[in-house]
Amino acid sequence: MNSTLETLSIKPDLQEVLKLSGDITIYSDPEALAKYGHDETEDFVFLPDAVIIPHTVEALSKVMQYANEHNIYVTVRGGGSGLAGGALPVMAGLLISMEKFNQILLIDEKNLQVTVEPGVITEVLQNKVKEFGLFYPPDPSSRGICFIGGNVATNAGGPKAVKYGVVKDYVLNLEVVLPNGEIIWTGANTLKNSTGYNLTQLMVGSEGTLGIITKIVLKLLPAPPFNLLLLVPFNSAENACAAVSAIFRAGVIPSALEFMEREAIDWAVAYLKDVQLEIGPDVQAHLLIEVDGNHMDQLFSDCEKITEVVEGFGCGEILFADNDAQKTELWRLRRNVAHAVKLNSIYKEEDTVVPRAELPTLLRAVKEIGAKYGFRSVCYGHAGDGNLHVNIVKQELSEEMWNNVIRDGITEIFQVVKSLNGTLSGEHGIGYVQKNYMPIMFNQVELNLMKGIKAVFDPKGILNPGKIFPD
Amino acid sequence: MNSTLETLSIKPDLQEVLKLSGDITIYSDPEALAKYGHDETEDFVFLPDAVIIPHTVEALSKVMQYANEHNIYVTVRGGGSGLAGGALPVMAGLLISMEKFNQILLIDEKNLQVTVEPGVITEVLQNKVKEFGLFYPPDPSSRGICFIGGNVATNAGGPKAVKYGVVKDYVLNLEVVLPNGEIIWTGANTLKNSTGYNLTQLMVGSEGTLGIITKIVLKLLPAPPFNLLLLVPFNSAENACAAVSAIFRAGVIPSALEFMEREAIDWAVAYLKDVQLEIGPDVQAHLLIEVDGNHMDQLFSDCEKITEVVEGFGCGEILFADNDAQKTELWRLRRNVAHAVKLNSIYKEEDTVVPRAELPTLLRAVKEIGAKYGFRSVCYGHAGDGNLHVNIVKQELSEEMWNNVIRDGITEIFQVVKSLNGTLSGEHGIGYVQKNYMPIMFNQVELNLMKGIKAVFDPKGILNPGKIFPD
Repeated sequence: MNSTLETLSIKPDLQEVLKLSGDITIYSDPEALAKYGHDETEDFVFLPDAVIIPHTVEALSKVMQYANEHNIYVTVRGGGSGLAGGALPVMAGLLISMEKFNQILLIDEKNLQVTVEPGVITEVLQNKVKEFGLFYPPDPSSRGICFIGGNVATNAGGPKAVKYGVVKDYVLNLEVVLPNGEIIWTGANTLKNSTGYNLTQLMVGSEGTLGIITKIVLKLLPAPPFNLLLLVPFNSAENACAAVSAIFRAGVIPSALEFMEREAIDWAVAYLKDVQLEIGPDVQAHLLIEVDGNHMDQLFSDCEKITEVVEGFGCGEILFADNDAQKTELWRLRRNVAHAVKLNSIYKEEDTVVPRAELPTLLRAVKEIGAKYGFRSVCYGHAGDGNLHVNIVKQELSEEMWNNVIRDGITEIFQVVKSLNGTLSGEHGIGYVQKNYMPIMFNQVELNLMKGIKAVFDPKGILNPGKIFPD
Repeated sequence: MNSTLETLSIKPDLQEVLKLSGDITIYSDPEALAKYGHDETEDFVFLPDAVIIPHTVEALSKVMQYANEHNIYVTVRGGGSGLAGGALPVMAGLLISMEKFNQILLIDEKNLQVTVEPGVITEVLQNKVKEFGLFYPPDPSSRGICFIGGNVATNAGGPKAVKYGVVKDYVLNLEVVLPNGEIIWTGANTLKNSTGYNLTQLMVGSEGTLGIITKIVLKLLPAPPFNLLLLVPFNSAENACAAVSAIFRAGVIPSALEFMEREAIDWAVAYLKDVQLEIGPDVQAHLLIEVDGNHMDQLFSDCEKITEVVEGFGCGEILFADNDAQKTELWRLRRNVAHAVKLNSIYKEEDTVVPRAELPTLLRAVKEIGAKYGFRSVCYGHAGDGNLHVNIVKQELSEEMWNNVIRDGITEIFQVVKSLNGTLSGEHGIGYVQKNYMPIMFNQVELNLMKGIKAVFDPKGILNPGKIFPD
């Protein structure tokens, strides 16, 4: 397997292919290679040999045909907001950016569906369908910069997943360019489908290793007109976590149920500078709880039930955000935790997920393992889904500690996650940085099934090499 | 490939294996072979060479090891209520019945999950979790006899799918015995999961062709305490269908939205005998509409909105079922349509599904194609999902017509379905009777991907042979 275009240095016949296929932009200058050689994962940079920006499906198909024939590695990139290195061209070769696939092709109001190209920014899509009274719930924190195609590739989630599900619950059908350039559709534009193997769901979350998504048909919902938002402080982070599953047992399904450790919110407040929020000295964690629906009365009643539950877990004074400005402010705070952590320190983010009632156990274990190995962590995330982002911060740790010893600590965290019937990643994907933890979750038989599927789609292994599977 | 145990006539060494593996019941008498040789699909019977009833996962694993080594075909059977022949042992060999895997292993109230064996009857599972205030929504008409494992294998649906989704939306994790006897878990017990390829979703709907499901972890919801039910008559079946998508556009998501042609309801009334229901002479179709939730006020408000919408489509007088007896009666009527059709005539059932706004077009096309080929159809189904069960009744048709010409008519119906962005099966699966229509839906590249996946799981092709893929 020859990985590079270096030896080709854009080979004359590839140039011919690119000309033939028309609508393509190509960069090979150092600035472009550097720009497309990183995402939001730690501080990794891997330079591709060339950046290819196809403008049409047909052009992309021709590039893939060529790459497949000539054994050239290809890595596909969306908005570049990934946290697991899924879009890093770790084996060089071609970096294909989907940025020109940026059209919302059809908003089907009658069927509550949208057909969209993968390079549309998630928030742009959300706002556009909202103009039609429609609602696309999956809502990653990076929604202002991430592409919907990347969201599909990672099976992204976000705060609203707790009530509305993750990306996989909205994808009905996909157009995909296979590694050999063939173009397929995975399913049908229907809410139910029992017609052969579910290729759609196999593509969702496959992180660009099986094919390149070029059109996406998504289910939409009628937009719920009302919501209410509560910020609930706790003097014990474990109590905050324990309250989470009790809320569901009380019969309420919130539209968001977020957990933030004290430091997460402190760092976000410090980063944003202009947020007005008083936090008592003993507060150790917050839950941010949203309910939404068609009837305000119902939401008030839900909030009463929630209040009863959280009071049973010894919460402090609840902040009730009753106007849009206050709601926006609290969400801005929550959405900026990741940035704030990133600015504060080099960090590694683990996207742990467990059944939600196991959250207190997981949080305790993370802290104990941190104490054992000498690292600090800042934890926050989508507690309603049991999805805890564990941010391990480097701060004053030595390079040796950071690059080697930490790995054993992370391994222990994932072993705990597995023992709680959880898994390595709830919404970020495995990509490059988590792949060597996969054997904690899957045995060799299970991994071989996945590898077999990979070989069916990509027999030459040219697409997004060096991802998902352990070295 | 040697298909049978006939030559073996239960080979001595298989008997040794069965003894070794302990907990197994085996039948090879003609009565048992006949009993396990059919399901609810038309009038097909295929005799297996032996019926194997394993009592434990380990015993099943040993049987599969043996079958794989000796190239013996194996077909797995759940409750035997399938309508596409997925459980028919069409190539003989071993018929494995999962009836002894009938335990609900764990109701996890804190996490709103249940771990269940595949041989539990769906209604038994629903009733058991209801005792804990919990709700498992997928609700096929056959729920009183079908197994939850078969529901997973076909990605079953039912009336509540329109609000709550289908089986795939509830399956979190599966224990599976592979064709070679290896035992795997497909995922984790989490609501979100971006950890490698989604083997769980690949198993759901794979109709027993990839592996044998032995444990199922399902998501549950808090049970909504209230519901209301409306029966709405229309003088035009197409108007009834057209009202369906308008209800969603009004912002209401019903918990059921069922369509019944006049004949469907007439036949069910005649079959049940004891139902009190007056239907005006001009009524051509009914919608049965349910809303559910935590707040009665909201449900009344939803019903008002629904009433406004259906009146806009010229409905007749709405029957408002306001007590449990009346609700049960209407649901009993709906659930018995299939039986009534079956008793009335030999029939073929097509499980068409389209985007819901395309229902009027589909219904019109079905009738036109019927007129062209000279067959009658009785149509009903889950209109909220665009899932129309087209029951083509034999009645006075000749055998030649029934066995040959009808196929062209069905092909035309499926071509229309495809042109409307729909697909062949919404919830029944492809199994044996629909497999030769698969090329209408998928091209050779797409089918080859599915075949490739099959070969990864089952390289010798011993599991449920003669299903899903066209001859």
